[in-house]
Amino acid sequence: MKALTDQFTRIIKNSSPEDIGILTDYLRNFEKKQQGAFSTYLSASLDMSRVTDKESSVVSIPNTAFIHNTVAIPHGGILAVLLDTAMGTLANNNCPEGFSAVTTTLTIHYLSVADEEQISAHARIIRRGRQTMVLEGNIYQEDGKHIATSTGSFFVIPKKNPIIASQQ
Amino acid sequence: MKALTDQFTRIIKNSSPEDIGILTDYLRNFEKKQQGAFSTYLSASLDMSRVTDKESSVVSIPNTAFIHNTVAIPHGGILAVLLDTAMGTLANNNCPEGFSAVTTTLTIHYLSVADEEQISAHARIIRRGRQTMVLEGNIYQEDGKHIATSTGSFFVIPKKNPIIASQQ
Amino acid sequence: MKALTDQFTRIIKNSSPEDIGILTDYLRNFEKKQQGAFSTYLSASLDMSRVTDKESSVVSIPNTAFIHNTVAIPHGGILAVLLDTAMGTLANNNCPEGFSAVTTTLTIHYLSVADEEQISAHARIIRRGRQTMVLEGNIYQEDGKHIATSTGSFFVIPKKNPIIASQQ
Amino acid sequence: MKALTDQFTRIIKNSSPEDIGILTDYLRNFEKKQQGAFSTYLSASLDMSRVTDKESSVVSIPNTAFIHNTVAIPHGGILAVLLDTAMGTLANNNCPEGFSAVTTTLTIHYLSVADEEQISAHARIIRRGRQTMVLEGNIYQEDGKHIATSTGSFFVIPKKNPIIASQQ
Repeated sequence: MKALTDQFTRIIKNSSPEDIGILTDYLRNFEKKQQGAFSTYLSASLDMSRVTDKESSVVSIPNTAFIHNTVAIPHGGILAVLLDTAMGTLANNNCPEGFSAVTTTLTIHYLSVADEEQISAHARIIRRGRQTMVLEGNIYQEDGKHIATSTGSFFVIPKKNPIIASQQ
Repeated sequence: MKALTDQFTRIIKNSSPEDIGILTDYLRNFEKKQQGAFSTYLSASLDMSRVTDKESSVVSIPNTAFIHNTVAIPHGGILAVLLDTAMGTLANNNCPEGFSAVTTTLTIHYLSVADEEQISAHARIIRRGRQTMVLEGNIYQEDGKHIATSTGSFFVIPKKNPIIASQQ
Repeated sequence: MKALTDQFTRIIKNSSPEDIGILTDYLRNFEKKQQGAFSTYLSASLDMSRVTDKESSVVSIPNTAFIHNTVAIPHGGILAVLLDTAMGTLANNNCPEGFSAVTTTLTIHYLSVADEEQISAHARIIRRGRQTMVLEGNIYQEDGKHIATSTGSFFVIPKKNPIIASQQ
Repeated sequence: MKALTDQFTRIIKNSSPEDIGILTDYLRNFEKKQQGAFSTYLSASLDMSRVTDKESSVVSIPNTAFIHNTVAIPHGGILAVLLDTAMGTLANNNCPEGFSAVTTTLTIHYLSVADEEQISAHARIIRRGRQTMVLEGNIYQEDGKHIATSTGSFFVIPKKNPIIASQQ
């Protein structure tokens, strides 16, 4: 652990203010995950929060340099993480006991650049079938700007073994 | 910085072996970014590597717990990051001087679960227009398994101001 | 023309009641096209009707054997004709003078089987840009059943020469 | 039938040379359908031909005024009919006895304008699952021009009752 702590000290010493901001966020959320506040490393690193029930789901992340691409705007793939998570969470809320939903198809239209402090994806169900579901996901800003619209197809599989089960 | 270092020490103390692995990777790549080996925090945190020219582009990340969802398989959104980056890099390689390409539409079919140590997305150009491009991106494993196939539409815009420019 | 009329007489003689129904519809709408009620052979053969303004567009066709596939349900491609026409009409309604909109990307989710006498696609605009537009199209039945949902990207081009212009 | 024949005579009298061409094609293929050469009214009216086996499928139609939109180029929806038919035919060729494949999702990128006499869609299988299949469909010209690229998801259902079965 000595080597890791030395490396951390060295990184801090070489950090820009932006680096310090990113590291501060990362460690805060990593520690929160250790305390059970996040279920995955990915959701912790993105500081992801969810508000969800059987009818809708909203997933939000802060719009920081951590998710920016080389031209300093949110990476389209991270918006895909957000939309897929919002739709997947809602699909799972609608699966029968012992089943879960896996994404089979995802289509995203990128409409404009997210420039508010939070980015939130809102999902709703379009088709709730026994074996397949279709959902819609949208990223809207507080100021009304529409950032992205998406649709996703989900397949309902037994929870036990997602890897084998996904070979539908 | 004292508070940050104390927090880091506390996190290390409470870490599982998996936590230590994730932190080790994160710090190694964060330091590499400080040394110029990565252009964004996101590509550093994903340990993203690229091999690219004007005809093709391959973008790879290691398949670790960092990118896994709640059922311990790679998050579909992270595969979207990979595919969008591979296609976007190649689209940018084909833009005239002073222009860059932004994703307008992304469609992904998830085919099977990635279970090798590396995940690699391969992009190729389908249509190279003056204002719009269409690309294909695929994730294949070394063992031949096809993980995902995708297509993307890109819009070519002046580099100067991507936020204004994206309001095509 | 004698040969054509003879062939027509022969066809009539060999027709099932369903054949007669199809021929009756076809000739009625072909004659209507000659009188200016339809702008294309395709819209005449599908007996397509439109209600449209700048905010919305609804395009309808009768659900007859003419559009059925080998398993006697409406061909998915014909639903695509309907959705693309509804979205394209609305996109064109929103183009500046001298410009028209061409479809660049179309994504359709088929949700259930249309079984009412009319099939109607409803379009609305999601993003109205200077050069690109994104629209949504849905096929709903009177009984509330959701048949298909779709999104389309459109590119705005000068009307003069669509073939050259479409090489964006 | 007298009324129908009178109407036909009237239509012929009022026909432009283009009208006569369209009617001639329509009646020839309608009669061929009566003789068993086409399985549906739609495939007859489009003069659709197929070359298909278990590995590939090619579906072709002539590029006539019948399929043109208001700007005299092939209607994007008709290209969707062609692509969906090519992919659906191949998907069906790969279904087990007693099962058939229905389209669940279709995504098409329109790349350039078809201007040859024939338009042909080529399909290939990307993923052959027990319950779902993913296929790719492309329209290429003889001169090498790439007209459209598409992907489709298909669901495998028992043949008996497609309407009930499609409520997966």
